[in-house]
Amino acid sequence: MSASARTTIDVEVRYAETDQMGVVHHAAYLVWFELARTRHCATSGFTYAEIEQMGYWMMVTGVEVSYRQGARYGETVQIECWIDRLTSRTVHFAYVVRRDGRRLATGRSHHLWVRAADLAPCRIPERLAEPFARLVATESQA
Amino acid sequence: MSASARTTIDVEVRYAETDQMGVVHHAAYLVWFELARTRHCATSGFTYAEIEQMGYWMMVTGVEVSYRQGARYGETVQIECWIDRLTSRTVHFAYVVRRDGRRLATGRSHHLWVRAADLAPCRIPERLAEPFARLVATESQA
Amino acid sequence: MSASARTTIDVEVRYAETDQMGVVHHAAYLVWFELARTRHCATSGFTYAEIEQMGYWMMVTGVEVSYRQGARYGETVQIECWIDRLTSRTVHFAYVVRRDGRRLATGRSHHLWVRAADLAPCRIPERLAEPFARLVATESQA
Amino acid sequence: MSASARTTIDVEVRYAETDQMGVVHHAAYLVWFELARTRHCATSGFTYAEIEQMGYWMMVTGVEVSYRQGARYGETVQIECWIDRLTSRTVHFAYVVRRDGRRLATGRSHHLWVRAADLAPCRIPERLAEPFARLVATESQA
Repeated sequence: MSASARTTIDVEVRYAETDQMGVVHHAAYLVWFELARTRHCATSGFTYAEIEQMGYWMMVTGVEVSYRQGARYGETVQIECWIDRLTSRTVHFAYVVRRDGRRLATGRSHHLWVRAADLAPCRIPERLAEPFARLVATESQA
Repeated sequence: MSASARTTIDVEVRYAETDQMGVVHHAAYLVWFELARTRHCATSGFTYAEIEQMGYWMMVTGVEVSYRQGARYGETVQIECWIDRLTSRTVHFAYVVRRDGRRLATGRSHHLWVRAADLAPCRIPERLAEPFARLVATESQA
Repeated sequence: MSASARTTIDVEVRYAETDQMGVVHHAAYLVWFELARTRHCATSGFTYAEIEQMGYWMMVTGVEVSYRQGARYGETVQIECWIDRLTSRTVHFAYVVRRDGRRLATGRSHHLWVRAADLAPCRIPERLAEPFARLVATESQA
Repeated sequence: MSASARTTIDVEVRYAETDQMGVVHHAAYLVWFELARTRHCATSGFTYAEIEQMGYWMMVTGVEVSYRQGARYGETVQIECWIDRLTSRTVHFAYVVRRDGRRLATGRSHHLWVRAADLAPCRIPERLAEPFARLVATESQA
């Protein structure tokens, strides 16, 4: 995969993700975001699993979700993910959940680079700096 | 239970709530918030299960969480919950997660009253207006 | 999709599915089974969402799982699902979870047809009898 | 806590645990079992968190659950847990889930002692042999 501005994944709604309202429970969206983020990170040339093996974590420091309409079992939704902002020490992702082009939810997640060994905040690992910057650069040109 | 400004519950961390970072996955906090909200609503004199039986839902329209420190398996955390803001059509809850008095996370959730039958937004059910207002009134006096 | 003996789906391990042992939590396998079962039922010509809309549920009455080796974040696993046994009132599914051809887990789930309206056990809905029997017939011929 | 034959815990049903059938999703029972097992292990004098810190895991090798009746949001259920069988290398737990004395589900889980460092199966850690045997002994006398 080459660096791309935005990654969109398909997610089939799982029965276990629904609640007694008959729609997907609101906490499941964070798990979907993570799935899209995983796929988007991989376009940098490094999967998140590999990044962890290098000894780094993108620790989640915050999330926001705005829900407009529910997703239902039997449906497949699309999660679009992109890097909204990148600093030397943080990464900020944005997400849109859609079904047939209609927005169901939007969200953001905020991450801090930390060393897995001691949880100390750190700068983006050197090998990732350029690949991640390229993701954003591509974005700006889009 | 009588109306009270704030409700604090104890939650024992579940093994299944941890992830491979060794701490509780960030999505679990939304489930903990819901548990605290359930208990806090009950102090109004109506459990949320009863509210649903009346034909109403407090639909989640948004959430925000800010994470400071992770919770671990083997720990019991405290979730404090209160109504942050109340309008004729919406309820806004705030949360603090603590372990031994130390803040692990804070959050808010936003809810819209809807009729379960047709998902139409509506005013707070009449029988609940006064009990919910009392929760906030108590809060202001605290 | 036409009736087929067995359905195999790919499932990308979600970070949230791991626990602090560094592998997928054992409860997640039931959710994966359900996902494979959903896809397998659809080959009958009726999705499970449609079956529910007809007013029937395949209520889970039992499950068994045997775990051999853990699945990890960063991996994609295959879930194979087939109908193991079919009676006029019950359906029994079997599952194998594999990664690169290697067995990670096996399982079974047992289901009872019930009418959604009153939860009364019932015979397999008439419109489904033949399509489901065909799934098993195909299986026997395989 | 002193060694006891059986441990019973109260679990408040979480909204997120329900699915669109209006009852608790069947996978949630495995998480409840784990919660009861955690509490039961602690009566040995060693919490499971401490056991992991010693460098050992009770790896889950199998589970079986039999479901009779659903649990609902708004309810509190009781999970009873005991050691069903103990060998030098394995531990087998049994569970009953009840609501107001009525059986909702029963289950068993099977565990193998492994060294966390290399996942090699091993005998029960020496310091735990006697405390765990005592749990079973108490049981036999009950």
